[in-house]
Amino acid sequence: MAGSLPRSPLAPARFPDLPSVPGLRLASAAAGVKYRGRPDILLAELPKGAQVAGVFTQSKTRSSCIDWCRSVLSKGKPRGLIVTAGNSNAFTGAAGQAGTEIMARTAADILGCKPAQMLVAATGVIGEKLPDARIVRAAPTLRGALTDGGWSSAAQAIMTTDTFPKGATATAELNGETVTIVGIAKGSGMIAPDMATMLSFVFTDAAIPQSILQTLLQKGADKSFNAITVDGDTSTSDTLLLAATGMAGNKPPKSFSDKALKDFTRALNTVLVDLAQQVVRDGEGASKFITIDVTGATSAKSARRIGLAIANSPLVKTAIAGGDANWGRVVMAVGKSGEPADRDLLSIAMGGVTIAEKGEGVEGYDEEPVAAHLEGDSVLIQVDIGLGKGAARIWTCDLTHGYIAINADYRS
Amino acid sequence: MAGSLPRSPLAPARFPDLPSVPGLRLASAAAGVKYRGRPDILLAELPKGAQVAGVFTQSKTRSSCIDWCRSVLSKGKPRGLIVTAGNSNAFTGAAGQAGTEIMARTAADILGCKPAQMLVAATGVIGEKLPDARIVRAAPTLRGALTDGGWSSAAQAIMTTDTFPKGATATAELNGETVTIVGIAKGSGMIAPDMATMLSFVFTDAAIPQSILQTLLQKGADKSFNAITVDGDTSTSDTLLLAATGMAGNKPPKSFSDKALKDFTRALNTVLVDLAQQVVRDGEGASKFITIDVTGATSAKSARRIGLAIANSPLVKTAIAGGDANWGRVVMAVGKSGEPADRDLLSIAMGGVTIAEKGEGVEGYDEEPVAAHLEGDSVLIQVDIGLGKGAARIWTCDLTHGYIAINADYRS
Repeated sequence: MAGSLPRSPLAPARFPDLPSVPGLRLASAAAGVKYRGRPDILLAELPKGAQVAGVFTQSKTRSSCIDWCRSVLSKGKPRGLIVTAGNSNAFTGAAGQAGTEIMARTAADILGCKPAQMLVAATGVIGEKLPDARIVRAAPTLRGALTDGGWSSAAQAIMTTDTFPKGATATAELNGETVTIVGIAKGSGMIAPDMATMLSFVFTDAAIPQSILQTLLQKGADKSFNAITVDGDTSTSDTLLLAATGMAGNKPPKSFSDKALKDFTRALNTVLVDLAQQVVRDGEGASKFITIDVTGATSAKSARRIGLAIANSPLVKTAIAGGDANWGRVVMAVGKSGEPADRDLLSIAMGGVTIAEKGEGVEGYDEEPVAAHLEGDSVLIQVDIGLGKGAARIWTCDLTHGYIAINADYRS
Repeated sequence: MAGSLPRSPLAPARFPDLPSVPGLRLASAAAGVKYRGRPDILLAELPKGAQVAGVFTQSKTRSSCIDWCRSVLSKGKPRGLIVTAGNSNAFTGAAGQAGTEIMARTAADILGCKPAQMLVAATGVIGEKLPDARIVRAAPTLRGALTDGGWSSAAQAIMTTDTFPKGATATAELNGETVTIVGIAKGSGMIAPDMATMLSFVFTDAAIPQSILQTLLQKGADKSFNAITVDGDTSTSDTLLLAATGMAGNKPPKSFSDKALKDFTRALNTVLVDLAQQVVRDGEGASKFITIDVTGATSAKSARRIGLAIANSPLVKTAIAGGDANWGRVVMAVGKSGEPADRDLLSIAMGGVTIAEKGEGVEGYDEEPVAAHLEGDSVLIQVDIGLGKGAARIWTCDLTHGYIAINADYRS
């Protein structure tokens, strides 16, 4: 259960200092939806004219919140966001839809807007009815708590089995103005591309049209949240939102290819990658952070699939947990990806040391630095397919007894 | 390590009594390729005119043995089979090819045939050179041991991390003659369709032309070895062979659709399913045998993909390990399969009790029989997609601390 799990050994030393984002106000409260003695509900208020982009789970059994958010974004006038942790409000039939509407209405009443202007997200156990009365009861607390800060409490309010709150920030120059980006995220099981029991909310004061924001977010997600995996499982509730208040007063960019966006894109991707990596660092039971670099594939897409096959292989993940440079299992994973590969062209390195080359183990390679590398908590696996120029980078964690312990009795 | 692992709690009470197959002789020996004090090499002799069909791994990084077997089968005059356990002779470059040839030559010398008539298989660690001198040294022992029985020793000789030897038999009527089918198999990690570190060798005295045998085996594999998964990992060495000595003297069937084959097909599939289930029952760390029945999918292929998504989900497998009727994770797995599914049409039963129906949990369902069912060692999960008539059955096991313990230090 959240709170009772020890902090991940891969966690950053502390929660970062996050600045306020002009135009944005936050409030969190302990509604007792499931957890006790911690914030579990988050409200974010956006000013009139805010633009919001979203990327959602590809699950065929997505929650009603996802459908609701898509509808809100299509109408183009979002004024805020309400999130609850502990119950995903997913797979509860008509009650799920009702729960989403109650959350939207509760938030809209506080902010003085229409329910159809409220984005809604929920994370936690699937298939149990949302105790919406508890959320309604928390409304006065939320109303009184709205402030332009409170990031740490906000990041805690969206946690489930996460062992630490996740936040990141960056600034960028955009048409002569300095703009701020701040994001929070939660994991930490069912983490796979497209996406995970993963919620992430990123805010900026930049003025950027919605269509450009959407493209920026989609492209950024592909190299961050869609490049991580913990267990290959995909949640029904995954939501990544990017909200732009427009209060920075910058001249808006004209298109996605506007050169003025270069620095903003860099800063946004920095925040997205930072948050995605924190999600991996809090993967259930994780003891090692693994970076998988695939090069030489026939295409970037192929490299990505190979990287994910390696990252999702229980045999590779347990080998790394055991500090074993078992490159044979990496070969196996490349083979099972179904992507073009030639056994006799494959090269594999761990910790920068080539241990298999052109189809066979490197005779007498220096095992000492490899063993030392695998004893650390950050592992690099490089795989060269030797066929083309396709490359991809995937992040994952190892598979340990901790994952089994957490998941063999999460619900009970 | 094999031998030191406790026998799987899901193992059958004992190794079955297996009859001899006229025309077939077996020999096994302890060559010390990797393991000590147990048989680790198997030789099977087939009579002239024997017909052999094969189904092999779909891995793109398959071992040289696989290429060798395909070549032997294409020439159509196989006279025997040699198998070793402990070293898969895979991903060892030119040495791998040489190792395969030495195994074939050693066996051919014993049997008095050409190396190109010998089928070769190897299983075990990937990427380490085969200590072929040990196999050559075992030749006199193998030569002296050839007999028409010895199934138990043969089944042991192909084991790696298996905790029990696997065998099965059946008889059938074929054009007025009673024919015998006997098979052995090994698992027990990297078990996923198409196929696994899975070796299985099935023998019959029936007279059946090779092209028919091949179709029978391929179709049988789809409903047995290709319907099981332990960890979703696919080996580089998977081999399933069906050898027919022809000594039963039956009139050969004319085509795959010959009605005379009906009883033989039934008996063959019984043996294949029995062996495949034994592989699951010996899945690394398995404590529960899980049957997943998917119905109502838009096609059989779609049902199969949904079943595999459920079977390979770490979150479903850990829930079952914990005795938790967590149908929400089943919903998640259906959703991530990418196959057509409608959240609000889905029904899920465990142990025959419907616990979720048309998109939501069944209010107040009788939890007692479900809990009792999940406490047992054989779990049935039924999922109705509610869209069409596609159905599939998949077998798997749960994911436990045992899997982590075995795989975090298998090689070291």
